[in-house]
Amino acid sequence: TGSNEGLPGCGSIDFTVAVVLPAGGSGERTGLLTPKQFCKFLNRPLISYTIQAFERVAWIENIVVVVAKDNLDLMVNIVQQFGHKKVTVVLGGSTRHRSIFKGLQAFQGRGDESPLTKPKVVIIHDAVRPFVEEDFLLKIAVAAREQGASGAIRPLVSTVIATTSEGYLDHSLERVKYRASEMPQGFMYDIIYQAYVQCSEADFEFGTECLHLALQYCGTNAKLIEGPSTLWKVTYKRDLFAAESIIKETLSQAACVVTGVCAESTQLAHALQKRLGALDMQVDIISTLLRSTGKFISKSWNFIHVTVSNSCLEDVQELVRTFEESGHAVLYPVVLILVQLDVSEQSSASERMAMLGAIRDVATEARRRNILLYGILLNHVQGAEKWQEAVENLSQITAALIKERNPALTGQLLWV
Amino acid sequence: TGSNEGLPGCGSIDFTVAVVLPAGGSGERTGLLTPKQFCKFLNRPLISYTIQAFERVAWIENIVVVVAKDNLDLMVNIVQQFGHKKVTVVLGGSTRHRSIFKGLQAFQGRGDESPLTKPKVVIIHDAVRPFVEEDFLLKIAVAAREQGASGAIRPLVSTVIATTSEGYLDHSLERVKYRASEMPQGFMYDIIYQAYVQCSEADFEFGTECLHLALQYCGTNAKLIEGPSTLWKVTYKRDLFAAESIIKETLSQAACVVTGVCAESTQLAHALQKRLGALDMQVDIISTLLRSTGKFISKSWNFIHVTVSNSCLEDVQELVRTFEESGHAVLYPVVLILVQLDVSEQSSASERMAMLGAIRDVATEARRRNILLYGILLNHVQGAEKWQEAVENLSQITAALIKERNPALTGQLLWV
Ligand SMILES: [Mg+2]
Ligand SMILES: [Mg+2]
Repeated sequence: TGSNEGLPGCGSIDFTVAVVLPAGGSGERTGLLTPKQFCKFLNRPLISYTIQAFERVAWIENIVVVVAKDNLDLMVNIVQQFGHKKVTVVLGGSTRHRSIFKGLQAFQGRGDESPLTKPKVVIIHDAVRPFVEEDFLLKIAVAAREQGASGAIRPLVSTVIATTSEGYLDHSLERVKYRASEMPQGFMYDIIYQAYVQCSEADFEFGTECLHLALQYCGTNAKLIEGPSTLWKVTYKRDLFAAESIIKETLSQAACVVTGVCAESTQLAHALQKRLGALDMQVDIISTLLRSTGKFISKSWNFIHVTVSNSCLEDVQELVRTFEESGHAVLYPVVLILVQLDVSEQSSASERMAMLGAIRDVATEARRRNILLYGILLNHVQGAEKWQEAVENLSQITAALIKERNPALTGQLLWV
Repeated sequence: TGSNEGLPGCGSIDFTVAVVLPAGGSGERTGLLTPKQFCKFLNRPLISYTIQAFERVAWIENIVVVVAKDNLDLMVNIVQQFGHKKVTVVLGGSTRHRSIFKGLQAFQGRGDESPLTKPKVVIIHDAVRPFVEEDFLLKIAVAAREQGASGAIRPLVSTVIATTSEGYLDHSLERVKYRASEMPQGFMYDIIYQAYVQCSEADFEFGTECLHLALQYCGTNAKLIEGPSTLWKVTYKRDLFAAESIIKETLSQAACVVTGVCAESTQLAHALQKRLGALDMQVDIISTLLRSTGKFISKSWNFIHVTVSNSCLEDVQELVRTFEESGHAVLYPVVLILVQLDVSEQSSASERMAMLGAIRDVATEARRRNILLYGILLNHVQGAEKWQEAVENLSQITAALIKERNPALTGQLLWV
């Protein structure tokens, strides 16, 4: 990081940018006991996904996460467990505005702590909006640099109406003249910091809009930029469901088939590639993962290891070790499907039972490392039509395992 | 239906109520090609779930669904396939208001069609808000009867801001004074019908709020009632994900374990009941489903058939036939899990292979009837601790199959 001039993909960012992420909310609206930013899906709390969205942006230097005292240890553990590198955790205040101000103060070096470098621009975001993307952050940062302040807006979803004090319709607003104010918002650091220094106790206690403070105390009219619908705020339990489904769908978009050198495996891999392609999955085929030094491992969260007869468990153990060493499964569970093409037709039932036992043992170990291992045994049936049908079934089962990422089904040997 | 005075659960509804459901939208915001009201999850289009929400309310007599010409055949097929009994499908107009007016006209008996009986109160709702519940519909209907018009409102999720013509912040609205106008809305039929008769071409072309028309043309100030968050509108793809997850969660709340008369089955059933209970599932145990004449069948969408050794496939076939005859699987896929407790320890691998083949054949047939059949083979391991662990694994797998309802995994024999 540091100075980013001329780096590809950094757009026109030639100034320093940091993020403040207030994460003190209690989340009573989800209907869950845990504050929603700490609710987990795929074994990871929502706030870690949001942090990751900023951490992968090269021109963002620091992320200050502001939490309530009760959640301080939890947050420090999350940063450690998921390997977040740009995060500083600080204690919040009793309201949202007080927490944001505390976050901004982390760049001022109060007391004897060594301060973070004061950025030119600070982006303020919600911990519960995990799908913010680099291109939009770039727009917000550049507009904040140019105008002093900037904020995401969205068209209104519903008509907004004014009500009488007795609960009757008074009038409805003209929808085209208004927008919903969302996050992220961007500010010249000095502007938003001065706004907080000057603002009243009433602002700290009841205010919600940072944009409003910048306008009132610094005379800065924020530039408003329409953001994508993916900026939405995870508020209710249904939003957690939606977020989990979106992450699962994203993880399922690509798979890598590893074939070894056997001709039959390669043929099956190509048939799978075609059919998974029809299910909107992008499939790469390679002969071995072990010699590809991370190139394919980092591209996908799903691996299908195709072998002929039962020579493969050692390979699979080695694959599991490779994933472990790469740290690839820290952020998301990796799916590893072992497809065994049974060409002999005489392989006995007891051989198959032995294979099941072996897979189960490897799977139990792998699951502890966030690697989900499943086995599929494919009988080589005679006749083109029956074979087509078998491959179609294999594809359906493979796609289902990848999409659902269910830990309870690991170690099973399925049959096609 | 008809007159409902004094019926338990009908509250104070002593007047006739019908529903108009405009379903003409094109749904470009979901990012999908299909209009969102016709997008499917669990094999059923969204609009059928919404229709079902009204159809199960005893005091609602008619549901008029208004569709675009292109979707007329599709809609008629949906009504037939899912057995909707209270629905009349009519052709819509070129805008939302024109479509609602067409829906209202279905109660006027134009031309030579035999008209629907004109209701005292009409509820207007969106086809893409499937989770509306009877208690809220009751509030809306009663308030419409008393005040002439009523509408659901929700607190604003985001701050609403006014923008300058150059895209800068002008001012933000005081959140407490405003509400989001949602659906359903209720009207005295004569009031909303007269409002449409009198309204202008501009209203038909550009208007969105029925409440506004009732106010402008009939002087009726609608009573506004805060609704639950579940009234939200399915707008984006993530909302379809959320709706699917909510339905799946609801279907997974209860299961029924069928044991036969064997003591070991009954014992296992009680262990399962306890552990599934810890996963928030309400479990009933019965000895046989076949003689219970629909009582348990209608209560649950999940059945776990526990048997000892392989005597059970005929029972399962008979269960599948029972579900078929009951029509239970028309609206939702029914999960049927065959748990076989293997106490002999000598049952050979080839016997197990035979069982797999048999399950698969029954499952293929059952799946065509929306019945998802899975097999689980449980080895009776020695030692209390190992047995506890096995039962825990069984519960995890059972819960996963029930929660995911995945057709691709039917016919599999899983192993614990
Ligand atoms: Mg704000
Ligand atoms: Mg309306």
